Amino acid sequence: MSITFQQHRLPNGLTIIAETDQAAHSAACGFFIKTGARDEATPIMGVSHFLEHMMFKGTADLTAEALNRSFDEVGARNNAFTSNEMTCFYAHVLPEHLARVVDLLGRMMRPALNDKDFTTEKGVILEEIAMYKDNPFWVLYEACVEKHFGTHPLSHRVLGTNESITALQRDQMQTYFNTQYSADNTVVALAGRMDFDKVCRQIEQLCGFWQPTRVGRDNAKPVPQGGAFELTSEKVNRAYMLALCEAPAMNDDRRYAAALLTQILGAPDNSRLHWALIEPGLAEEAQASFDPHDGFGEFFVFASGEPERVDEIWATIEKELSTLINSITQDDLDRLLNKLVTAATLGGERPADRMHRLGRHWTYLGKYVTLEQELERISRVTLDDLRETHQAFPIKPVTIGRLMPSPR
Amino acid sequence: MSITFQQHRLPNGLTIIAETDQAAHSAACGFFIKTGARDEATPIMGVSHFLEHMMFKGTADLTAEALNRSFDEVGARNNAFTSNEMTCFYAHVLPEHLARVVDLLGRMMRPALNDKDFTTEKGVILEEIAMYKDNPFWVLYEACVEKHFGTHPLSHRVLGTNESITALQRDQMQTYFNTQYSADNTVVALAGRMDFDKVCRQIEQLCGFWQPTRVGRDNAKPVPQGGAFELTSEKVNRAYMLALCEAPAMNDDRRYAAALLTQILGAPDNSRLHWALIEPGLAEEAQASFDPHDGFGEFFVFASGEPERVDEIWATIEKELSTLINSITQDDLDRLLNKLVTAATLGGERPADRMHRLGRHWTYLGKYVTLEQELERISRVTLDDLRETHQAFPIKPVTIGRLMPSPR
Repeated sequence: MSITFQQHRLPNGLTIIAETDQAAHSAACGFFIKTGARDEATPIMGVSHFLEHMMFKGTADLTAEALNRSFDEVGARNNAFTSNEMTCFYAHVLPEHLARVVDLLGRMMRPALNDKDFTTEKGVILEEIAMYKDNPFWVLYEACVEKHFGTHPLSHRVLGTNESITALQRDQMQTYFNTQYSADNTVVALAGRMDFDKVCRQIEQLCGFWQPTRVGRDNAKPVPQGGAFELTSEKVNRAYMLALCEAPAMNDDRRYAAALLTQILGAPDNSRLHWALIEPGLAEEAQASFDPHDGFGEFFVFASGEPERVDEIWATIEKELSTLINSITQDDLDRLLNKLVTAATLGGERPADRMHRLGRHWTYLGKYVTLEQELERISRVTLDDLRETHQAFPIKPVTIGRLMPSPR
Repeated sequence: MSITFQQHRLPNGLTIIAETDQAAHSAACGFFIKTGARDEATPIMGVSHFLEHMMFKGTADLTAEALNRSFDEVGARNNAFTSNEMTCFYAHVLPEHLARVVDLLGRMMRPALNDKDFTTEKGVILEEIAMYKDNPFWVLYEACVEKHFGTHPLSHRVLGTNESITALQRDQMQTYFNTQYSADNTVVALAGRMDFDKVCRQIEQLCGFWQPTRVGRDNAKPVPQGGAFELTSEKVNRAYMLALCEAPAMNDDRRYAAALLTQILGAPDNSRLHWALIEPGLAEEAQASFDPHDGFGEFFVFASGEPERVDEIWATIEKELSTLINSITQDDLDRLLNKLVTAATLGGERPADRMHRLGRHWTYLGKYVTLEQELERISRVTLDDLRETHQAFPIKPVTIGRLMPSPR
């Protein structure tokens, strides 16, 4: 693999970055907009995700059907996603079709947003919100995040609520779009086989007229303080537990140590929680994860099991949390590093994966980090780093939610 | 990519196959046992999946902890899965660690199956069964499959039932293991950078002592006849619909046409069901899938939406089913073929994916088909082929289940 990084900035502020690889058998392109649920005013919560849907409804001179059909014609694998802080539209194709999907992605970024589609799609979003209510973990997750972040915009639900989506007006979406989908709030990331200069000229033609808006993000730190709470539901059979703790941000160098701590504590296999809870059959799920955001982060600790054993499960988790840092050995760390090197190598085999990594990094950090540099950085993490990070972020539950079956 | 297919058969009947690629950055190995829920006697339903769990509990001279730890030490991504007709154990690693994971996989294939682990793991499986009861689609899926296949072993649940797992004895599992995990019922598939001859010598040392059992599979054809039924549950908010129809088998050449029909009808995006149900907001999910088995197959048609609109949703699905075949154009077919070529190219970028394709094919068909041959075969499908396949398998619901919220 001979991978070259290239970048170009249009006069209007739109950034184009690529890892080109002339030996690749495919190519990938993604438009990353630095906007998501946390960038919404609370009354219009859910507008980013709703807008993501609307982007597929066509433009002034391209119908939704023609747009979808054109992606299909070149056999593109295309999709989009919205998170709390990012919205991304992407396509993976054979190299000979890259120009076509760049054209389609670039054009769809200036959508018609017409009234009829807005009304129809509102129904779709409300259905989606309803559907998630059948997912016990999701119900608990949303409740915990709201308690944890209180009035801070990180508490926003990506899907919005029934109320916010029902009340949302097309013009509010248009205003949000005009501010957020600006040239200087967008990064186009590419990877695979391509002629970078040619792609840049194409994107300049497509997006050169976009305006910059110098939009920023409210990066005020939240003060998490959810406490313990319990929900009950007739709709569940099992007990679900979720705890949120403070953690390093995406732009905090301690995130590497935090990610390693999380793995040792609660990777799906072979972690402390796995051996203490799953292996003896005490819980059916028990994991930890680390979710670093722009300026802030959280650790999640999650388990589910028999309602009668919920206290026992939770006591076991607390025990693992309290003994974690003093029980980590150099050997734990060495094994994990090997695992990360493999994961990174496998994750770098496809242009599609490289493009996503590139776009995400640039959107969060505004810089390029090679896979090799990142691996090198991870492999330098020492036991002392883990201890220092743990001292600052001791994986101490701030918000603890339970979802239990209603008594019959 | 210069990919070479190689194969070798040990005297005891164990088959080793590989797509070697000296330019790859990783390697993958999987042990495929041709056994699953359909190969179980009904009273021991779930034994294949339970056994899959037990395989990770170590051997006579390797503890569970040492086994897991050894995979970790080389940074392997390893896991296993059980389906109705196959059980697979696999690992993806950097090429320099391939020999180590082949050793671990080969050794774990002769597990200790001791009483204590059996009892503990029984609890884990029962938890897993309980957990799936919180998943509305799964509940409906299991009910439909049971109705559809009646007393035929294709009706078996992969997880088993509370009753079958509770009653299962260790000795029954041992007997099942002795028959099914035999040399001639196992294929080892590999892909990526490796020295094939060296790997073969290693596998011969590890598995050369395994006995063949000439075990077969009951391939009597089921006579599906589920009819329509409705379940209600206090635990759901939405209406869920699932229909099963007869379809070609994995070893039927019409499976390519069947797969294309399914895509046109109900791919997640841009399909007939998508445009008729999702796009106008009538349903929140609406898809079709094709599940070819050994000797038999089914089409699934699935939707969920508002309980009040369940009849309208179903009527729309029936309309799409009835108009499908006469409305398919050459243009539909051309677009789809492009999509499949892209998917196959992307699916062939990683040794991990190639290994899985190879092992699955060989287990089902007992032969090697290159990605290129398969693509060539797909691209020769004509509109007439679609029509002929549809005449034989008209996607006519035989079993139709609904899961509805209980009236309050």
